[in-house]
This record gives sequence, structure tokens and C-alpha cells, in this order.
Amino acid sequence: MIVKLKNGLQNEKTKRLIKWLNERNLEVHPSEGKTYTVLGLVGDTSIIDVNSIKAFDIVEAVTRIQEPYKAANRKFHPEDTIVDVGGVKIGGGHFAVMAGPCSVESKEQVLEIARAVKASGANLLRGGAFKPRTSPYSFQGMGNEGIEILLEAKKETGLPIVSEIMDIEDLPFFEEVDMLQVGARNMQNFAMLKKLGQIDKPILLKRGLSATYEEWIMSAEYIMAGGNKNVILCERGIRTFETGIRNVLDITAVPYLREKTHLPIIVDPSHASGMWEMVEPLSIAATAIGADGLLIEVHNDPERALCDGPQSLKPEKFEHLMQEINKIKTVMV
Amino acid sequence: MIVKLKNGLQNEKTKRLIKWLNERNLEVHPSEGKTYTVLGLVGDTSIIDVNSIKAFDIVEAVTRIQEPYKAANRKFHPEDTIVDVGGVKIGGGHFAVMAGPCSVESKEQVLEIARAVKASGANLLRGGAFKPRTSPYSFQGMGNEGIEILLEAKKETGLPIVSEIMDIEDLPFFEEVDMLQVGARNMQNFAMLKKLGQIDKPILLKRGLSATYEEWIMSAEYIMAGGNKNVILCERGIRTFETGIRNVLDITAVPYLREKTHLPIIVDPSHASGMWEMVEPLSIAATAIGADGLLIEVHNDPERALCDGPQSLKPEKFEHLMQEINKIKTVMV
Amino acid sequence: MIVKLKNGLQNEKTKRLIKWLNERNLEVHPSEGKTYTVLGLVGDTSIIDVNSIKAFDIVEAVTRIQEPYKAANRKFHPEDTIVDVGGVKIGGGHFAVMAGPCSVESKEQVLEIARAVKASGANLLRGGAFKPRTSPYSFQGMGNEGIEILLEAKKETGLPIVSEIMDIEDLPFFEEVDMLQVGARNMQNFAMLKKLGQIDKPILLKRGLSATYEEWIMSAEYIMAGGNKNVILCERGIRTFETGIRNVLDITAVPYLREKTHLPIIVDPSHASGMWEMVEPLSIAATAIGADGLLIEVHNDPERALCDGPQSLKPEKFEHLMQEINKIKTVMV
Amino acid sequence: MIVKLKNGLQNEKTKRLIKWLNERNLEVHPSEGKTYTVLGLVGDTSIIDVNSIKAFDIVEAVTRIQEPYKAANRKFHPEDTIVDVGGVKIGGGHFAVMAGPCSVESKEQVLEIARAVKASGANLLRGGAFKPRTSPYSFQGMGNEGIEILLEAKKETGLPIVSEIMDIEDLPFFEEVDMLQVGARNMQNFAMLKKLGQIDKPILLKRGLSATYEEWIMSAEYIMAGGNKNVILCERGIRTFETGIRNVLDITAVPYLREKTHLPIIVDPSHASGMWEMVEPLSIAATAIGADGLLIEVHNDPERALCDGPQSLKPEKFEHLMQEINKIKTVMV
Repeated sequence: MIVKLKNGLQNEKTKRLIKWLNERNLEVHPSEGKTYTVLGLVGDTSIIDVNSIKAFDIVEAVTRIQEPYKAANRKFHPEDTIVDVGGVKIGGGHFAVMAGPCSVESKEQVLEIARAVKASGANLLRGGAFKPRTSPYSFQGMGNEGIEILLEAKKETGLPIVSEIMDIEDLPFFEEVDMLQVGARNMQNFAMLKKLGQIDKPILLKRGLSATYEEWIMSAEYIMAGGNKNVILCERGIRTFETGIRNVLDITAVPYLREKTHLPIIVDPSHASGMWEMVEPLSIAATAIGADGLLIEVHNDPERALCDGPQSLKPEKFEHLMQEINKIKTVMV
Repeated sequence: MIVKLKNGLQNEKTKRLIKWLNERNLEVHPSEGKTYTVLGLVGDTSIIDVNSIKAFDIVEAVTRIQEPYKAANRKFHPEDTIVDVGGVKIGGGHFAVMAGPCSVESKEQVLEIARAVKASGANLLRGGAFKPRTSPYSFQGMGNEGIEILLEAKKETGLPIVSEIMDIEDLPFFEEVDMLQVGARNMQNFAMLKKLGQIDKPILLKRGLSATYEEWIMSAEYIMAGGNKNVILCERGIRTFETGIRNVLDITAVPYLREKTHLPIIVDPSHASGMWEMVEPLSIAATAIGADGLLIEVHNDPERALCDGPQSLKPEKFEHLMQEINKIKTVMV
Repeated sequence: MIVKLKNGLQNEKTKRLIKWLNERNLEVHPSEGKTYTVLGLVGDTSIIDVNSIKAFDIVEAVTRIQEPYKAANRKFHPEDTIVDVGGVKIGGGHFAVMAGPCSVESKEQVLEIARAVKASGANLLRGGAFKPRTSPYSFQGMGNEGIEILLEAKKETGLPIVSEIMDIEDLPFFEEVDMLQVGARNMQNFAMLKKLGQIDKPILLKRGLSATYEEWIMSAEYIMAGGNKNVILCERGIRTFETGIRNVLDITAVPYLREKTHLPIIVDPSHASGMWEMVEPLSIAATAIGADGLLIEVHNDPERALCDGPQSLKPEKFEHLMQEINKIKTVMV
Repeated sequence: MIVKLKNGLQNEKTKRLIKWLNERNLEVHPSEGKTYTVLGLVGDTSIIDVNSIKAFDIVEAVTRIQEPYKAANRKFHPEDTIVDVGGVKIGGGHFAVMAGPCSVESKEQVLEIARAVKASGANLLRGGAFKPRTSPYSFQGMGNEGIEILLEAKKETGLPIVSEIMDIEDLPFFEEVDMLQVGARNMQNFAMLKKLGQIDKPILLKRGLSATYEEWIMSAEYIMAGGNKNVILCERGIRTFETGIRNVLDITAVPYLREKTHLPIIVDPSHASGMWEMVEPLSIAATAIGADGLLIEVHNDPERALCDGPQSLKPEKFEHLMQEINKIKTVMV
């Protein structure tokens, strides 16, 4: 950690700060320049709050050198984490496709889609029972009943289930769900993250709409700090100034996070663009750049979908997408 | 609502869409251009999901004309809402200053700050007992015990209390708290918003880090749709590309939202900039532009603050700030 | 074009607006709703300035239905444009790799790099002679002398040359340069764009740091409106809140622009990330998603590079990159 | 400057880097931590290119401690710069209002507006003769003829003139113009900035759409490095994700830049919001926070304006605005 001071070393306030730092087991290496003095701190700074140093009024800026996360940090865990979701491995070379409807609408719908995506090669079934909607007047999902339908589809097809949890009080309904999804808007719902750290189910953690890489990893760290190491990160597009598409898929997140963390990283091309025409090309790019999996919306009748129809693929388009990404896989080591 | 089509009116798919719209009690007014056809929809579109129309594959784009919110919409409620927080009125010409420490650390600290801010003219005491921290290793707040300390300060000073709720399960602790704050990171925690709609306590709803005006009002609508009309909006800076300051205070939000909604709008200059030097000038600007109040961090010993010290004012600086904003108030009608 | 009014149709001001629109050869189709009235405009709206309509004080909002560009619009030119750069075709299925140093530093450097990238399969040589630098104290490029060196490398290797023009007064120096690059910071230097429309050399138009797709195409339209149809668009990352990387490569731009325009679209992975480690994965993703080419920085001695060393590949890494993208090409139709 | 290394100090590559730094007259102060080693550099780093250090492959990150600008830096020039524009002082406590039409359309229009704004208390007349328009099909301004009209208005009213220069070749037309405006889209047109450094006319430098504070000051530095010290910075809103308004006025820029630079800082509330209703409240906020002036669009007939009508005030609204900001001025020290 580097501390930039407004004053020189001989100042009384500087001495007080250095004493404060030493009390926290940090060695202080000062460099005095013409216009600024800086302190280099050596020791375990991952638990030091940057703001507690900035609060000293002689401090102009503080820069972290060491990452503030440990459990998720590749430096301390060089091996890829492989998460087992109901028997399907994800990460460390294991690639998985999770497909299904944005929201569960009926048993017939889910079964038809589940059979279709399985036939095309999907490894998991995704479907929303509890839906985060911007408007209180929009369809909010079938709730517990939706979960029941997903479990029936699991029984029939053998596909493990991924579904979003919006309220930790609903946890009992998710007992047989194989992976819990934390949505973008709850990425920093710390109360929920802490409670998800207490269970041992895999967690699919979506990136917040404007979360930095570090904030996103810190949210994974919240879950891991509680004891649950089964976290998968999911890039789903970020919010920018561009209005032509809903979100900008940040494909660089895949190789960048690969260096920073050992957790699997998957990509959701459906929410990123909000347009079904973009789902196949984005899936191909995500596969080619080395993502550990894809999360794709498939609907048998997008025009009748109760949510996010415009970004859902029909099963035959999904079939084509699977063929294309399989071609890409053949030329990757 | 305006629907832009890829095809002409005679197309079978267009006819199917028009039928679908008519079934939802919407009149359809078509305009056929050379390269595009558009449909103007007349009727109550506030409950129509834009995505369910976009899902028709002949639709290229859908534009809302009518706002998707009703309870919060000034069009349907031209009078300013005035929220009463423990006897202090906010909105409709009533201006209130809420001041206090970022987080409650001890009884002595809170009492000292409460007395000081009251002496300087603050109307409410703010303080965090449950703290949303980016890192699981940072101080997470004193919890219930912190609430108890705030209530003691209320008893002594008479100042009503504002404090953040992070987990709806903690609601019982907040029984005597006068206003519940929903933090920026929970602005779209819809499960919590719904439950806060069931109570009748005033809610201070902070804007999300990258929430649009419309999304922010829709979150207020979630609370109001449940029956709780006592919502105050709080602008606290948005996330941008600028790295010199933490957030960019969007001062335009005040006059803009004034036209769109009847709810009170206050400003938090402390979180916006993250630098105490900016708090006074931003408070002055917010007052001058017509905000209904300010939310300001004050700490008796910022260097010892367990969170957000760098943005906290010392009581004497807060005293100066109050004098400056009072000067501004004297020349405002 | 859709005009949303604050008043009803019977209003005098509305009648005045409708008359004004009719004078501009636009048919007006009104739809009157409960809270709003909208006018659908039919006719050629591409030359209408949205702001001239918004300036009527009864107008609340104006939405374009038709794109404001014509020459660059795929609707009016369904066939892909193929640009010929010194004998190398780009677009319409022709893929090209442009490689070379960020800035020209010496004849030896350029020749060594040019030979290496040609051997690895590059189709064009890129190199900066005039350099846009944030600081006036940074190396500003070799200028005309740098162009001379590039031309020598062209003579020896046969690779056509791409180089950035920063000042239209330098145009005479570029007579033998095969393609002129307009940098991100000059994307809306309209005076220069107009003059580039008067010549017939291919123009490589980089996307501005925070330019929308539409603004970017409008800048191409500026060049094309002058008569120069040889424009290639280059995505080079956009500015966002993320601080871990320099820019976010917006890969969705490739399939999205493919639908909107017939111009070739290439990708610059070097400037996007600013980190050489990201260049290969981003190049693979860009190739897989269907870009018409890549613009890549290669330096024989990045540590000695006078600009942008951190994002430059060494020739052996570039060789590896070419092998990887060739693998991808084999499985693409 | 702080350099974060991937390797320890004993590494050969580290030694090579340290030698390279010493050759540039920089003292190196190393701190060796468990997971990282950092080097603190002492000396004049303002002319060092961060990228040339990052290009050493053992370097993970470089952080500037010293600002990269000198001429514009308040540290080296503690006194406020006061710019004299045709006899009107701006900065150092001198507040000036520049008002006039977005674009010059006719002699009658300009004279009428000039008389009106002078009567209301404006200090300078602004007007565009050369207009930067997103579309090549929009009105591009009257050019040289427009400048002539502005000069006639100057002669009659005595108000100094501010007008935008888009092409340095037009400089001869600006001989009698009192201040040259550099538009947001040309903020990093370095070729033009350099040439403006060679003249001695005051330059009004608008902030780029997504320019950081530092980039903006560096563009001022380009002009100042050439010898022209008469630069005024103009905040005009930044591009964000918000779609309700055109730009977000970053009011924090005023107090923040006040600490970093001695140059005057003014605010343009018209371009920021793009809505005339927001111009008065934003002007009040900008005045209250301490801006050195305002740049405001006034049009006698906004509905007939050839550009940016929606953000133009009518003269009577401008008169009201001047009264309001004068009230604010009375309570400011």
C-alpha cells in the first residue's frame, strides 16, 4: 500500500500516522520528493481499510498494491477451482452450457424447452421462478410453484437446475435446486451474500450493472469468507452510454479475471445484448476467448414469453448455436 | 407507446400483433413510411411490458410515451408530497438537514456528535448501525447495539433518527427508528422494497450507483405500490469514468425529478465526492438548486472513524456549512 | 419520426407545428392519448434536425424511427463494401491483419518489424509518424521523416501502409500512404472529416472514446457525403467506469454494425486493453465474432518503445497469435 | 511515481529497470513486500511517460504521485489566473456571463439578442459561426459571414465576442474575435491545441464528452506549453448512462479543479442538460458553488433556431436568470 502525503516526514502529524501504521504491523518505507512524500507499507494490508488511512488529514491519496481479496485470489490458490453442479463440472477446462427460459411459465413450457436444450447438448437447465423486474406491475414469476416445475424437468431430463434467489427467506424452496443464482442487482446485497456463505450449494454470481472487477471478486469473497467455496462468476454486460444495445458485454473480463482469480467464469450473452440476434455471435466470441460456460435464454415461443422474449432463442436457433460453438471448441487446445 | 415494425401493415404477423394489442385494450394508430411502419398505441400502457411487444419478431423497437410509474408520478399527483419524519416535515418547501456519523462506534461518540449537529441546526440524526462494506473484512457496524445508541441520542436531543436497513430480517430492531434508509446497493433489492411497502415508516431511498432516473422512481413505485407513500429520494452521486473523485454528484436530478415526481428529493454530498473538502461546496449547490434536504456525515474524530473518515466533516466545519446554506436560504423564495 | 406533445391536437401551437412539418414534406399522423398526444411523421426525416422540432415548446420528446445516415446505411446498400487498400481487399469476406509499431522510431526498427509481421502473415504495415499524446511533453512522433521510413518498408516488403493523420495540413506527406487513420480523439473533428471526404484514399475511422454507434456511423457519413466511399470502421474499446483495464472492447459492435452498415469493421485489441497479455485472447474473440480485420501493435523491443510499449506484442507472440486466429478461421464458413 | 513489480529486487530485470530509471535522474526507493515489491521514484517525473515504464515486462502497475502538468498546476502557481477578454476580467473573483445564440443566423437576430443580454447584465456575447454538427446534413453555420455579424454586434453593444473555432485554417477570420472557443469534440485535437498555443488570444477550452479532469488540464497544458497562458476551462456536462437528460453537469469539477489549477473555471448549463427548463437552476447551482462565469444560450425565437433550440432561453427568461444569480452573488463573500 502506498500513502501519498501532503506534508514532509518531520511533521508531527506524519509521525502520528507512522506510529498508527506500525501498530498495525506494517513496516513503513518513506520516499521524500520535492512536492510530495510517499510511504510504502509492507505487511498484510489486505485487511486494512483504505479509508481509515485517508481519514488522516495529511494524506492526499492511498493506492493499494496488494489485492484486498484472499480466498478468491489466484496468487494464493494457483489451481483452477472446479465447481461440481449436480454432477456437471465447471471450470478447469470443463465447459458447460446452461439453457432455458427466462421465467418458468408452465410445466408444458419448461418440459418442452428442457428436452430440446438437452437434445442440443446443454448441460444444465436454467429457469427463473422468482423474477427481479424493474416494475412492480410486471410479472414477478411463479415463485415456489415455478421451482416445483423445474424439479420435475430435472427428474425427467436429468439436467441439474440453476435458478435465481431474490430473497434469502425463500431458501427452503431451493433445497433441491443444484445452483443458486445471485442476480446483477443483488451482487452487493451483502446480507444475502453472507447467508449464502453459510450453505454449501454452488452460487452463480452475476456481475453488477456497473461493478468493477474488484468489487465483483469482493462479492465472491463475501460468500467464500463464510465457508462456501463453490462460486462461479458470470459476466452479463455492463452499463455504458451506448443506447443501441442494452448492455456492453465485457469480453475482456474472461482473460483478465483468469489471471486474478481461480474461480470459473461464464458468460451470459442473452442479458448482455437484450437482442436474440446477438446471442449466437456473442456466444461464439465468449467460447473462443476461453469462458468456462454460457448461460443462454431459450424459449419455445418468444412472442408469448412473460419476460425478456426479445433476447430468447428458439430451440432451433439454439441447436445451431451449439453446433457453432462446438466447431470453435474443436480448434481450441 | 410507439412500435416500430420491420414489415408493412398487410403482413400476417403485423395483423397478429395488432390483434394482440387490441386484446389488451390498446387502440392502434398506424403510420406507414417508406422504410418503416410505426404503430401508435393509445390506452393505459403503464402496465404493458415493453419486452412482451419486442418479442414479436417483426418489431424492431418500442418507445414508451407514457411513464411506467403512477403512484410516484406528478402528472397524477400534482401536489408536493410532504413526509413527516418524527415530527420533522420534509418536502413541499420544508428543508431538513440530517447529520451524523457514517457508523455508530460508541455511545460517547454518537452523543457528542448529536449534540453538536443539533446545536448547529441539524433537524435529524443519521448514523449507521448495519454497514454495507465492499470487503467482508471491514468493520460491519455495531448492529442492534448501534440502533440502541442512536435511540439514546434521540431521547437526549429530541432529534429523529435515520438509519440504514440492509436485511429485512432486522426490521424488529428498527421499531423506534424514524426513517429507514435503503442504500444505493439495495435500490433494486426488490424483495426488500416490497416488504418496506407493507410498513408505514418513511423510507429514504438512495439512488443506485448507475440507476437511471426512471429506474430510481420505479423503485420508489415498488414501495408505494405496497401502500407506503412516505418515500424520500436521495441523490448520492453516480458512477462514471472520472477517477479524481469517487462519484459525480448529479445535481440536475433535483430539478429534473421535481417535474417527474411529487416525492421529496434530498442530496448526500458526503458519499458523492468521498472528500470532506467537497462537502460544503456541494451542499451549497444542492441547497441553491432547490433540494429538500441534505444528508451529511459528521464525525468528531475523522481519523479514528471506523468507516468513511475521509468524507466526514468535523463539527466546526459542519457549523460553518450550516451558516453558508442558511445564507443561501435567505435569498431563495 | 415520432413527436410527443404536451398539449392536445386542438391547441393553436400544435396546429402551427403541424403546418411547419407539412412545409417540410412530412405527412403527420396523430394519435391522441389520455395523457399525451403523439404525431407520427412520414417522409424523408433523415435531413430533419431533431432539435428544430424539440425547440417548439409544446414538444416533450422526439424519437427517430429512420436512421439519420444514408450513404453508410445498409438499408440502401445491402451489399458489403469491399475496400481495396494498396491491393489488399478488406470487407465482404476479406479478412486483413494490420500490424506494426505504435510509433515509428528508426528505419532499423520498422524494417525489422515489417519483415517479421509479413513472415507471420500480416497483410498491411501500420505505424505512427504523427502521434496523439495526452501530454505535450511526451514523444510526438517523427513526423514526415517517419512517413518516409514507412514507405521504405513498404518498398522492401510490399506491405501497404496505414498511418494516422492528425492535422489535415500534413496531407501532402501522406501521398503514398495507402490508408489514412483517423484517431479516436479526432472522430468528431468534423473539419478534418469533410476534407477527407474530398480525397479518394481509404480512411480507417476509429471509434471515439465514448461515441455511440450512431455518432460513429455519422462520422463515416461525413466522409462519404463528400464523395469518399472507402471507409473502414475500427472498434478500439470504449471508456467505462472499469479501472482494471484501459478500455472495454465492445465486441458486440461487430455484429451490431454489420446489420446497420455495409462498411467493413475491424478491431484494435491493443489500444482496447492497453495490456499485451490481452491482445491474443481479444484477437481470437474478434476473429470468431466475424470482424473484417485486426489492427495490432507489434514491437521488436517493447521496453524501448517510445510509446505504448505495454500493449505491444513481440514478433514471436504475434506469430503465435496469427496461428491461433488461423485456426479459428478454418472452422468459420 | 510508484512502480509495482512482479519480481523481487535481486532479479536481473529489476536491476536493469533501476539503471534505466537512474539514467533519467530519478532516485529509486524500494520496498519489498511478501507478494509484491514496489519502487518509489523521487525526482521530476512529470516528463516521464508512464507507458515507457509499464513496457518493462516485470512491471505490473505504475502510479503517478506528481501531476503530469506544470504550467496549469496550482502547486507551482498558487495565485488565481485572471484572463482579460476584451477588457472583461474572468477569474480571481471576477465573474462573467457570456450569452448569445447557439448559432449566428442573421444580423437582426444577433443584434436583437446582443442588446437584450447586455441589458440584462451579460458581459460577453457568444455566438457560433462555425458549427460542429453530428450530421453532415445539418446546418453548419454561416462561417466567416457569421463572424462579421458578431463583430457588428460587438461594435454596437461593446460586448466582447466569444466564438468557436473548428479548423485552424479559419484563424484569420477570428482576428478581431476576443476569445476562441475549443469545442468538446476538439478537446484532444492536439494539432489545433498546439497552434492555439502560438497565439495570444484567450482560449475557452470545453471539457471533452468523457474527458477526465487530468486529461482536460493536460489539454490546457498543451496550449500553455506553447506560450499562451490565457486559458479558461469550461465544464459542459459529461456523458453517462442516463438517458433522461443529454449530459450530466459535473458541478464538482468547479471546487475540485480550483485546488488543482489556477485557471478560471466556468460552466455551460445549456449544453449540459439540453433542456431550457434546466438552465436557470443549473446556473444558480454553478454560481453558488463558485464558478468564475457562465456560458448561456439565448435566442429570441427558439422555435426558429437553426440549432439547439430546445436548450435556448428566451431573453425574458435570461433576464430572470440574471436576477436569480445576482441574488446568490449578494450572499457570497
